Amino acid sequence: MTIFAKILRGEIPSHIIYEDEHVFSFLDIMPLSRGHTLVIPREPAVTLDKLSEAAAAALGRALPRIARAVLAATGATAFNVLQNNGELAHQAVMHVHFHIIPKYEDGTGLGIGWGAKKLEDGAALAAAIVAKL
Amino acid sequence: MTIFAKILRGEIPSHIIYEDEHVFSFLDIMPLSRGHTLVIPREPAVTLDKLSEAAAAALGRALPRIARAVLAATGATAFNVLQNNGELAHQAVMHVHFHIIPKYEDGTGLGIGWGAKKLEDGAALAAAIVAKL
Repeated sequence: MTIFAKILRGEIPSHIIYEDEHVFSFLDIMPLSRGHTLVIPREPAVTLDKLSEAAAAALGRALPRIARAVLAATGATAFNVLQNNGELAHQAVMHVHFHIIPKYEDGTGLGIGWGAKKLEDGAALAAAIVAKL
Repeated sequence: MTIFAKILRGEIPSHIIYEDEHVFSFLDIMPLSRGHTLVIPREPAVTLDKLSEAAAAALGRALPRIARAVLAATGATAFNVLQNNGELAHQAVMHVHFHIIPKYEDGTGLGIGWGAKKLEDGAALAAAIVAKL
């Protein structure tokens, strides 16, 4: 059982921000910046690609409202939403979670490395992805 | 008008991955890794906190399905979902967009800087955020 499953069961305390039928939200205890908040499904999916559409829609619906409250309470005006899938992609707890991470002028918040290159074979790649939808 | 608004209107071509009543998805033309895909609302909100609940729910619902197709087509097993709000938080186009970014063993994908610190005043901070919900 993950630490988030224990938080959902109330076996580990958390600073609760929001909850509904599908969604639970609480403060990250190791924040990148002030107001760093986690938004998770009650459904115990490990990665987003394994999550049900109902839970994913409920997470999506909750994100703007929680983000607005984080901004209002902290005074932040910029923020990142990040959701990691797989250890290689920096996932540390094996239960789907969205991070809402305020970004401040002092630099606290998410650090982003952006090594973009030009798309070379877009038509073929898009066709390959669409074929798997 | 943003470049994404022009893509939504069909005035600029894109490699379309998925579309429905609320959601439009296409390949990023400056990808961080193979399969880097954007998922945007038709609604022209600048940041996620300004997006309607209906559009946000539709985006959330579409993300797992599109992610599965990206993984299936590319062979990637890890990925990050990132959504940036505000120039300070690395937002480059002023229309809400979620990035689906495969992460590969060769290191291509999203670079993440994670300067976490211990949460000091969780109870007071949570209460301040909840008061703004």
